[in-house]
Amino acid sequence: MKYDLGTGEEKNWIVAESSFSSSLLGKAEAVMSLGNGYMGLRSAAEEPYVGEVRNLFVAGTFNKSDAQEVSELPNAADVTRMNIFIDGERLDASVRTEDYVRALNLKTAELIRSFIWTTSAGKQVALKFRRFVSLDNLHVIAMKMELEALSDNVDVSVESGVNAQVSNSGAQHFFEGEKRIYDKKYVEMVTRTVESKIDFMFHTVHHVTLAGVELNQPFMRMDRRLIMLSYQGTLMKGQKFSLEKLTTVHTSRDKEFKGMTLQEMRDCALSSLKQCAAEGYEKLFARHARAWEQRVWKLYQLNIESQDDFDILAARFALYHLTAMTPAHDERMGIAAKGLSGEGYQGHSFWDTEMFILPFFIYSNPEVARSLLIYRYLGLEGARKKARSNGYEGAMYPWEAAWPSDGEMAQEWGRVDIVTGKQTKIWTGFIEQHITADVAFAVWQYYMVTADQAFMDDYGYEIILDTARFWTSRLEWDEVSGQYCINDVIGPDEYKEHVDNNAFTNYFAHFNIQLAMEYYSNLKESDSDVFHRLNELLDLEHAMEAWMKCIDKIYLPQPGEGLVIPQDDTYLTKRIIDLTKYKNQTHVNTIFEDYSLEQLSDIQVSKQTDLMILFYWLEDRFTNDVKIANYNYYEPKTIHDSSLSLSTHAILANDLGDRSLAYRLFRQACEIDLGPEMKSSDLGMHTASIGGIWQVIVMGFAGIRMLHGELRINPELPEHWNKLEFMINWQGQRLELEITADQLVVKATEQVPVKLDVYGKEYCFDDVLTVSLTEARGED
Amino acid sequence: MKYDLGTGEEKNWIVAESSFSSSLLGKAEAVMSLGNGYMGLRSAAEEPYVGEVRNLFVAGTFNKSDAQEVSELPNAADVTRMNIFIDGERLDASVRTEDYVRALNLKTAELIRSFIWTTSAGKQVALKFRRFVSLDNLHVIAMKMELEALSDNVDVSVESGVNAQVSNSGAQHFFEGEKRIYDKKYVEMVTRTVESKIDFMFHTVHHVTLAGVELNQPFMRMDRRLIMLSYQGTLMKGQKFSLEKLTTVHTSRDKEFKGMTLQEMRDCALSSLKQCAAEGYEKLFARHARAWEQRVWKLYQLNIESQDDFDILAARFALYHLTAMTPAHDERMGIAAKGLSGEGYQGHSFWDTEMFILPFFIYSNPEVARSLLIYRYLGLEGARKKARSNGYEGAMYPWEAAWPSDGEMAQEWGRVDIVTGKQTKIWTGFIEQHITADVAFAVWQYYMVTADQAFMDDYGYEIILDTARFWTSRLEWDEVSGQYCINDVIGPDEYKEHVDNNAFTNYFAHFNIQLAMEYYSNLKESDSDVFHRLNELLDLEHAMEAWMKCIDKIYLPQPGEGLVIPQDDTYLTKRIIDLTKYKNQTHVNTIFEDYSLEQLSDIQVSKQTDLMILFYWLEDRFTNDVKIANYNYYEPKTIHDSSLSLSTHAILANDLGDRSLAYRLFRQACEIDLGPEMKSSDLGMHTASIGGIWQVIVMGFAGIRMLHGELRINPELPEHWNKLEFMINWQGQRLELEITADQLVVKATEQVPVKLDVYGKEYCFDDVLTVSLTEARGED
Repeated sequence: MKYDLGTGEEKNWIVAESSFSSSLLGKAEAVMSLGNGYMGLRSAAEEPYVGEVRNLFVAGTFNKSDAQEVSELPNAADVTRMNIFIDGERLDASVRTEDYVRALNLKTAELIRSFIWTTSAGKQVALKFRRFVSLDNLHVIAMKMELEALSDNVDVSVESGVNAQVSNSGAQHFFEGEKRIYDKKYVEMVTRTVESKIDFMFHTVHHVTLAGVELNQPFMRMDRRLIMLSYQGTLMKGQKFSLEKLTTVHTSRDKEFKGMTLQEMRDCALSSLKQCAAEGYEKLFARHARAWEQRVWKLYQLNIESQDDFDILAARFALYHLTAMTPAHDERMGIAAKGLSGEGYQGHSFWDTEMFILPFFIYSNPEVARSLLIYRYLGLEGARKKARSNGYEGAMYPWEAAWPSDGEMAQEWGRVDIVTGKQTKIWTGFIEQHITADVAFAVWQYYMVTADQAFMDDYGYEIILDTARFWTSRLEWDEVSGQYCINDVIGPDEYKEHVDNNAFTNYFAHFNIQLAMEYYSNLKESDSDVFHRLNELLDLEHAMEAWMKCIDKIYLPQPGEGLVIPQDDTYLTKRIIDLTKYKNQTHVNTIFEDYSLEQLSDIQVSKQTDLMILFYWLEDRFTNDVKIANYNYYEPKTIHDSSLSLSTHAILANDLGDRSLAYRLFRQACEIDLGPEMKSSDLGMHTASIGGIWQVIVMGFAGIRMLHGELRINPELPEHWNKLEFMINWQGQRLELEITADQLVVKATEQVPVKLDVYGKEYCFDDVLTVSLTEARGED
Repeated sequence: MKYDLGTGEEKNWIVAESSFSSSLLGKAEAVMSLGNGYMGLRSAAEEPYVGEVRNLFVAGTFNKSDAQEVSELPNAADVTRMNIFIDGERLDASVRTEDYVRALNLKTAELIRSFIWTTSAGKQVALKFRRFVSLDNLHVIAMKMELEALSDNVDVSVESGVNAQVSNSGAQHFFEGEKRIYDKKYVEMVTRTVESKIDFMFHTVHHVTLAGVELNQPFMRMDRRLIMLSYQGTLMKGQKFSLEKLTTVHTSRDKEFKGMTLQEMRDCALSSLKQCAAEGYEKLFARHARAWEQRVWKLYQLNIESQDDFDILAARFALYHLTAMTPAHDERMGIAAKGLSGEGYQGHSFWDTEMFILPFFIYSNPEVARSLLIYRYLGLEGARKKARSNGYEGAMYPWEAAWPSDGEMAQEWGRVDIVTGKQTKIWTGFIEQHITADVAFAVWQYYMVTADQAFMDDYGYEIILDTARFWTSRLEWDEVSGQYCINDVIGPDEYKEHVDNNAFTNYFAHFNIQLAMEYYSNLKESDSDVFHRLNELLDLEHAMEAWMKCIDKIYLPQPGEGLVIPQDDTYLTKRIIDLTKYKNQTHVNTIFEDYSLEQLSDIQVSKQTDLMILFYWLEDRFTNDVKIANYNYYEPKTIHDSSLSLSTHAILANDLGDRSLAYRLFRQACEIDLGPEMKSSDLGMHTASIGGIWQVIVMGFAGIRMLHGELRINPELPEHWNKLEFMINWQGQRLELEITADQLVVKATEQVPVKLDVYGKEYCFDDVLTVSLTEARGED
């Protein structure tokens, strides 16, 4: 991967590869994937290669391929593949290729590929491909191909169309569907998911010219799940073949199609395609690029002046994917753990959203955060279902969520157990339960940062109160200690299954109940309609009794010997091994080549931070000494096998004063997707890590935190950063921040008074605040 | 394709390609496909290529992927793909490859591929792959790979296992299934078809050595529908890496598994694999090669001494595929139109079996013919269902048959209509009805040639009588002409849909009824149990009344102007166009690029012989003059767009005395699969054409025919053939024939008296008959 190909206007905006690499196919497809939240498209090349994965996902279109599998985002028809032949020879950039570049322009969200190819007979052609998934019209995929005969006359043949023969690693989600070509031009494929009965409509049109003359008599081919048009002609030396391909994708789940018949939807989609065709690639692109400019770059206004160009590129890369992955258009949809860029985790939403991605939206784009939390509100239906079926009360959020009403979607069987030769049972869907408190916590964060009272009244309180009800039904009374325990769970560190009293889980459950009690009291006091509605729905009086009974008796693991807090009841008793080999691993899961999960459970080795994430989010509950002691104890035992791990460690390191370590971890976090490990992103982007990049910058280096409802800013930039600029929303107002090594400037754009805390000192202002950081830190 | 690579013992036994060609992938996969009737395996390379189609079909395992589709042979898990890396670089024979040969040895039914490959860093390795699908143990696929480091030390990595992510062009027939690895060695994948609930069991074991040392600690990977083992090591220059992979395939439809539980079947299959592993590739291969020697080459004893080596090679190629494609082991299964070598026609059986392939088995291996006809007997259930649902009586055979009890399996929608842009409706399943008479005709042929009375008593009569019942219910009385018509059908020439009184259909229906009447009378006369059973079942008395009423009034198109028999009521009135372009077409369906099927129906153009096939099989009903006149009229209008067409024309040309044309057409028929047209076999072998090759040789050049229950032999070899040797079974006895230009020698191997006719002269002998052909023909 190359990050320095952009120059001039494009400097630090280009993620690219500068030679064809068959071993990097998966990585490039994911890292350079395109998307607009409505849909996501892996950036597989037009011409096919062995090892490629062609994916197009439309957010929220979950389906079960058969009753024994869980719902997943189905891989929709491929519209990008083209079979390109020069003099009858299949185009193959892996041979006889010069000047190969595949580049994602983050600024314009356009993928550009160009190279010169020599046929086996020695004829040279120049090719250029462009492609974008429109942020202006969420249904549009636009492609453009240009081929120039450089050295000789050549015969060109390009076959292109809609190919619905794709599947999710063999699982087929669609019926055969209907195929149609109108006027030898407009291709229509209508397919339906087999279980969820969602209709997908693909419409494609080509505009092809050869030496400026339009080709409009393609050879047409229909096969099973396939419509292909083939354009052919002879190019004289110096002439160009040009192909524009515009595709629209619609589904019956689209909001704007509500209440329509299938025929009405098809008509609508087809006429939308015809409008696109009238405009053509360039006009559509201009509108798309403008949307990115307005809705992303101008909005977030993130800038880093660093001695290392990679830093700002990584930050832009994060904002790019945060935009591409997030279904901001529809509150019935969550963010998938791999975004819309790969089959991994089947398009399901995990706690990754609430703890790793949502903070970005809460602070930078609260409307989107609101939409994502309404997704969880709608998910109460599934969460209650899950609680009931597990014998609990209230709302028990699924570890993996798909369509909000669906309940638990975690798979039951995973990787091979090297000892038994069977698949390992996946327990997360049963016992990784902290997610329920994570959602409540996120609602609280959103409320505190945005002061969105309407949201709380309509959705937020209900989530917090009902999740707290779950926890009281979940607690187990331990007669011996006289405390409430939470036994048999998985914490964030998934290497330890079936543990008792996971610290993170217990603290967060406690927090969840505490918060519910506070809101119960506030609401009751106000005697509002909200209270009466929720009291009726959730039997709050009774719930409050239970909360009061347990709140002070929930076991919260405390620092012991050497100030170490036990991650769970048995962690500290397990054996310690040399983890050097795995700490420096170059691909994930290496440890499973040597140990089965069962064997790992007897070793003090962690997949990811467990106490660190607790310290990060509940920072005021622990002293610095305790944090440092536990950091020093657990970090060496953590192999960061989860992409969620590094960003939290980076923030903690910065909090704890180790700036150079923090920066090193930040870089490592960025390199989860952007780094040299060639297989790391094959199954899709690590969206939590992408959210983590933003968090390290803003929550870490800029030191932003919401504490007790107050804004705190303790900036501590990496040494080689000259300046950091960004914006946050604070309780309805946009704040623009500029941070240098020794100065913080905050601009309140709407002149509403703001209160904030910098290094323990409180400031109040309604225009521009300038703080000397050396002073604030008490240095000098 | 190369046919002259075989030398010495292997001369004229090798079908090969001598350089890697990415455009010939599909053709080579099909033409060199392996099979044993139980299963068929396309010969895709171990290392994957763009454009390849990896298929493994197990005969008779039909399934519907969803309710809207027809049953088809599902593409079973792939066990042949290997991901091979040299120094981390994916093996790719399309570049830097020398001495590439992929060869099918017809004699031993082994596929061998070898080449020298140079890595991009310039290191040379030699590779050799071998593979067979055992005829000795029908469940075994054996593979062997050898890699030698020629120039340097190299790191080798081979990933191999079972991949069930495959589908039929996107249609998935299997549930996810169960995965297991025993002892890091025995791979087990158990999957089930989604609708027909057939369990498939795949078991695979590897034996890998590096410089003679066994590697037995593979890296194991399980993914969705996938189990992979990865073997790695470093080869010193001159050392060898060797991998043997043995796979067994079993299904719950296997006869020997009747009544077993799934667990019992799995145990059985796994222990069978372990036995194979104990033997290893070479021993298994020796037994396999012996089975081919005994059961094919020694049995059929076909030999051609021709000045052109291609002729005997083509004949062997035909016998090879006739063996590979035919599920001789199970009478519940028919021959698929593409054999077991491709997805085309979905594994369904057409009239291709009865009219093009069965003659070979009737004359050469009657037991197999019997099994194939019992498949049709079992198919009476589906045929009766089809008749009933169409408002007819008796047995109406499906145009496309799958599992015998299933009834009609023809798809409803086909290629794109270039005028409407919609898919063309396929009418064959509704109105291509001659298949019913074809089956009856085949039963009669079998009976006459084999004298297998038991078959007739148990199965044959019932087929003939019940199909005749269908025809009487199908006939339509035409008041004007005072005749019975058969309106709205498709004849063998499928370019003409919805025609009235197709000559072939009417003559064959008439034949069918006539035959039923004859057998009715014989049976009634004998007053046997058979008669009583069938009378009760089919209400024969009543059926006979209907037959007697109609038999003389069925309209049989007669020669008219210029002795031309109208193919149907309107053919001769349609316009005539210049067909030169399509007569010389280099790929199929060219005409559909210019005309829709509806437009073709108004033109005197035929897909295949219609009257020719009628003349061939009912030769005594037409004079030579009529045959010649119609040959001359229809041949120029026939574009042989069906692979069934050429062999019939070749036989007719020989019958009519044009030996050189006959030979030219024979060569063309052979070239349907063996010829240079690189796409022709992509969807699988043309099995009818393969049967046709044998028919041109034996029924054409040797002039064998059963006429009125008598054997006739009118040999007429191509001019450059010195000798033709083959065997036939005649009424229970094996006859061995040797034909030269002027002599026929027939050996009766069991010394039972044989009566036969040569050029109108009758001979009777019980030992060896020698006939001078010049004399017999009345020449000189």
